[in-house]
Parts: sequence; structure tokens; C-alpha cells
Amino acid sequence: MADAFRYEVVKVCKQTGARIGKLYTPHGVIETPVFMPVGTNATVKSLTPAAVESLGAQIVLANTYHLYLRPGHELVRKAGGLHEFMNWHKPILTDSGGFQVFSQASMRKISDDGVKFSSYIDGSKHYMTPEFAMDIQHDLGADIIMAFDECTHGKTDRRASERAMYRTLRWLERCAARHEGHDDQLLFPIVQGNMYEDLRKESIKGALRFAKCGFSIGGLSVGEPKEVMYRMLDVLRPYYPDDMPRYLMGVGSPDCVVEGILRGIDMFDCVLPTRMARNGAAFTTHGNLTVRNASCREQFFPVDEECDCYCCRNFTRAYIRHLIASDEILGGELLSMHNIRFLIRLTEQAKQAIREDRYGDFCEEFRAKYDWTVKGR
Amino acid sequence: MADAFRYEVVKVCKQTGARIGKLYTPHGVIETPVFMPVGTNATVKSLTPAAVESLGAQIVLANTYHLYLRPGHELVRKAGGLHEFMNWHKPILTDSGGFQVFSQASMRKISDDGVKFSSYIDGSKHYMTPEFAMDIQHDLGADIIMAFDECTHGKTDRRASERAMYRTLRWLERCAARHEGHDDQLLFPIVQGNMYEDLRKESIKGALRFAKCGFSIGGLSVGEPKEVMYRMLDVLRPYYPDDMPRYLMGVGSPDCVVEGILRGIDMFDCVLPTRMARNGAAFTTHGNLTVRNASCREQFFPVDEECDCYCCRNFTRAYIRHLIASDEILGGELLSMHNIRFLIRLTEQAKQAIREDRYGDFCEEFRAKYDWTVKGR
Repeated sequence: MADAFRYEVVKVCKQTGARIGKLYTPHGVIETPVFMPVGTNATVKSLTPAAVESLGAQIVLANTYHLYLRPGHELVRKAGGLHEFMNWHKPILTDSGGFQVFSQASMRKISDDGVKFSSYIDGSKHYMTPEFAMDIQHDLGADIIMAFDECTHGKTDRRASERAMYRTLRWLERCAARHEGHDDQLLFPIVQGNMYEDLRKESIKGALRFAKCGFSIGGLSVGEPKEVMYRMLDVLRPYYPDDMPRYLMGVGSPDCVVEGILRGIDMFDCVLPTRMARNGAAFTTHGNLTVRNASCREQFFPVDEECDCYCCRNFTRAYIRHLIASDEILGGELLSMHNIRFLIRLTEQAKQAIREDRYGDFCEEFRAKYDWTVKGR
Repeated sequence: MADAFRYEVVKVCKQTGARIGKLYTPHGVIETPVFMPVGTNATVKSLTPAAVESLGAQIVLANTYHLYLRPGHELVRKAGGLHEFMNWHKPILTDSGGFQVFSQASMRKISDDGVKFSSYIDGSKHYMTPEFAMDIQHDLGADIIMAFDECTHGKTDRRASERAMYRTLRWLERCAARHEGHDDQLLFPIVQGNMYEDLRKESIKGALRFAKCGFSIGGLSVGEPKEVMYRMLDVLRPYYPDDMPRYLMGVGSPDCVVEGILRGIDMFDCVLPTRMARNGAAFTTHGNLTVRNASCREQFFPVDEECDCYCCRNFTRAYIRHLIASDEILGGELLSMHNIRFLIRLTEQAKQAIREDRYGDFCEEFRAKYDWTVKGR
């Protein structure tokens, strides 16, 4: 194990087994469970790093695929790495680009060696291999980096899912070999296997052989019902080592974060808070709120009365609705702050419940209050 | 004179007659010369009020015309006024909407009574009179409000300019009558007269009859050469009372602010800093810089080495160019901070030079360094 990284479990909830831990990295300690805001292009959309930090963020994500295409990993290296480039001096995690190569690139051609794809920006041709994904991430210099994986969508058949899962394991071996000696960065293997229980088990067993101090669960929240995702987490849980954090990639919504923690997940990320904000919508304690709606026009009270964020402490729904109706950027900016803070505060509340051995009760209370089917009120 | 307002001259530069003053308002003291960031729709575009305050802003502008159309002055009144609505608790100034009615509205029809126009938002019909412009501004509740004026563009002929100037004076009388008793808001008359020296003189004499503790100079920076604007300011200068601030509306660029202060102007506003920022351009000590340009791609140093703003202290041109190239909002946001701070810092430097009786030298130094003809480098 790289000396720079260490994970310790601080507390396990007697009621549920949910846990609090600490992941030590070269840029600071991350207390889990943690929600990681996404900064795809080396910026959490519309927010300054100072604002992101003020929301309680401990770590942010950036995207290997996007940064490779623009501005290029070599430019980021010349800038002194991602931390310097984007002026974020706490931990950073980069994903491998696998998910984006499979979901965003056009005209891709996959072989065991790697993936040919065209840039969504200018159509230029590119070739990504496990080794190159490591090289890029070494240049970007994030604290935590991801193995290059083949991600399948929710309705992939068994045969294709199995092929992708085994290919991901073979690619992992090549990633680990290329990563040798880069002890200041921690490589997370990624578990795949789609919605097939036996494939998931095979995948986690294979992935854990290369896990030093953490691993990722990929290929969930890709279109399947939430219950299916929860079942997959239950299938994987018996295989989790205690001494490393478990990262559920691309998740999620407030309810998925609460249910994920219940199932032993330590790390989450999702573009939902900023994407919803740009569409004029907000998380609230009672469910989602479409602030854009006319019903908010004369609501001279905060988006969420219970929230402690800059947006909720200082602005009314009426003002934010006016900003959104006037196409003013500040509307999405304030809602981004709120939505990110909402998820971070949720993990803080979860930790408090775990400390008090009442995380099961916390889940019940949350489910009774938070209606995730609501789209706007 | 309304008791809530008072202006005192703190220092006059022995070299130039340029001055420092203090304008006392119900929401705090404004030290002049001052640059006022523009928040057209009750938001300084892309910036939180906390960010605007951190730039050293003492007062912001909002726009009567825009806020009347959306969200409506009655909604703002219900919200508790503009200060509450936009969460800005320092002074606010609203313009009267005159300029926008004449520059932005379509199908307008002007009579001595008022102006018919169509909304740029939905084409709906509206009728603005001097009395209604006052009523709206009373509902908005800014500290400083503007009389309703007829603004002419730079190439208006003498006859039309004269008619507009006298109409503006007649409207001023009606504004002042309607404003009676609203002692918590200060009404600024507006000087018009286009580029005709005798009309300007007539206008300022008429306007000053209704000036309590400040007045505005409108109808400049509307397309005429800068030398013509400076000449008009020289024509007006002998008429300025000492005991009230002089506000040059819609100005300006760094060079116009420096030259305006030299000619006795105390207050400035302009959309240029935020508009340039949205277009990827920045003020610098040496002239304008197009950060969007490829030349900035590998410039790992700040937009302006001499600037003390959050943008320049923390980010490189290379990063900001990356944000702009990636259509990331943070790019314009950081440049907005910088550009506003640049103008505010310029007034702070001007005040220091005035205190030291060397504002003439300051102007020379500024002119030698700052090339306002540069569009990008």
C-alpha cells in the first residue's frame, strides 16, 4: 500500500453497520461518508473553489476524458497539475474516462487493446488504452485515480456484460502495472458486471486483488430501477474489506445517498445538484422543488427552511425565481450552492446518526419526510 | 434637503481640483469618486452580493425599466424593497428607465405627457410618465433615484435635442412634485442637451433648481468621440455646486473614469466590466486583454499582475482561457470580479493621488501606461 494513503474506520453504527471513516491523502483527510461535487472541466459548474469549500466539500471530482480533450493533460501538467490549475488544494479524484468514452463519444471501436473514439468537440480521432488512461491521470495529478473500465448500460445482455466485466479486469491488471511507482496517487479498481449477481461477485473478487486502499462500484445508476441498484449493493456487501472506502460512482440523489450509506457505501459523486440547479430545480427536505414554477413567484421564504447554506440564509424563492425567469446566471449559481450543500449536509447528518447508533431510525425519518417522486411543488 | 442625505467634500487636489467626498445615505456612507457596478435585473451579473461587496463596491445600480417589466415593482415592494429582495444592504441607485425606454423599447410614441412603448419581453403595451417613473422607484426603494428624462443619441440634430432637453426639464418638475415627502430617497435631476454647449448650460441651470444633494449628467457616452464628451464636461464644470456629488451616467471605461474624475465627476456606472467579462475580455494596467485568445493558452500568470482581486490572486490566464473555451460560467464570473475590481481599485488609487495633491501626475502616469485603443494582445 502506498504510504501516502491510509483508511481507518472511526465508528460503526450498532443499529445498521453503517460507518464513519477517515481516508488520509496527500492533500488532506477525507471523512466518510462523503459526497464529492463534480467539476467535469476542472470547475464545479458556476462556483469558485472558495464557494465549493464553504459548502463543506472535502474533495472534488474532475473528468479525465474531458480534460484530455480540452485543455489537454500536458497543459495541466505544465500548470503544475490539477490542484494548481483549478486552485483547489484539497483532495481531487479523477475518473478514468471509461464511462465517458462509452456514453459520450461517437464512432467508438472497442478491442481488447483499447478504444478508438471521436471527440465530441471537433470529431478528431483518439485512441484510449488502459496505459494511456493512467498516463493522463498521472499528468493530471489527482490524489485518487480510476482504472480504465468498460461500462455497460442498464439493459446490456448477459453475454455482453460478462465480456465487458472480464475485459475490465484484464484492463485493471494493465492499469496497475502502469501505475507502479506512482505512490502519491491512489488507484481505485472498478467493479462492473451490470445487473447480474454472479458477474458482480466475480468482478469484485477480481478487482479487490488490485485494491490498495479503496475501490469503486461502477455501472450502477445507469437506467435500472433503484431497487435493482440496492439489490446489487446487497450482493456485493459481503465482499467489502473493512479497511478501504467503497465508492459508488455517479450516485446520487438524496434518497440514493441515504440508502447507499445504509448499505456500507463511503463515497458518492453526482452531477445532479448542478444539473438540476441549471434547470431551476432544488432539493428540499420534503423532495424536489421546481423554483422556476409560477407557484414560487411570491414565496418570500427560502428554498429550504431547514438549510444552512448561503442561498437559503440570504435569498427567497421569489428572488431566485426572478433570476431564473430573467436568465440570470446567479439563479443557477445559488441553486448549485444549495443543492451541493444539501447533499453534503445530508452526509453530515448521516454521520451524526451513525455516531449515535441510530442510522436505521435516521433512514426511516428521512424516507417518511423526503418524497423522491415529487418533481416540483 | 432631505435630512437623510448629506454630501461633504473631504479633500480637493491642489494640482487639479479633483476631489474626495462623502455622501451620507440611509444605507451607509459612499466615499466619492465611486464606481457603481450595474445590477440591471437586481443582480450584478453572475456575482453574489457577498462577492460584489468583497470587491469594495459601496453602492450598486438597478434598472427601473427592467424591474418594472420583470418581476414588477409591486412584487419588489411586497418583498420589502430592493435591498431585501436582492440581499444588498448597502446603498442602491435606480435609474429612471428613461434611457432604456428610448434605447430598448420598440414602437414607442412620445408626447409631453409621457411615453408609450412595447415590452421587449412579450410585446405588451406600457405607458410611462414622469409620475409613474417616480411611483415605480418609490416601490423599488433605492436610496438614490433618477428623474424621468428623454435621452437623445449622439447624432440627434439641434432641434430635436433642444426639444428633448426642455421636455426633460418639464418632466423634472413633475417628478419633483410627485417625489414630495419621500425623504428617505434622494432624487437626482438629469442634465441633457446632447453635444450642444448652450443647451447643456440651459439644462444644468434648470436641473439644479431641483437638485437637493446630487445630480446626473445623462446623454453622454452615446456614440460621440471621447474628446467631445470631455469638452461637454468642461462646459458644465463651472456650474457645479460644491456641496453635491456629480454623477456621469453610463461611464465608463478605465480611461473615461480617470478623465472624468479630473473634470470633477464623483460617480460613475457602466455595464462594460460585466459585458466584457462575458465576452472573455479583461481590463489590465496596460489596456484591454482578450483572455479568450490562443495567446493566453499557456500563460501561467494572472490576468493582471498588479491586481489584488480574487481572480488575479488565485488563477492564471491559462485556466480562465480554458474555462471560456469550455463555455464554463466560472470564466465570465472570475473576469467580472476582476473587471469590477479593476475600476473600483482605479477609483481608490485616484483618491490616494488626490489626497497627495498629485492627481494630475496620476493622470499622466495612467495615460502613459494604459492603452485604451488595444482590443486584445
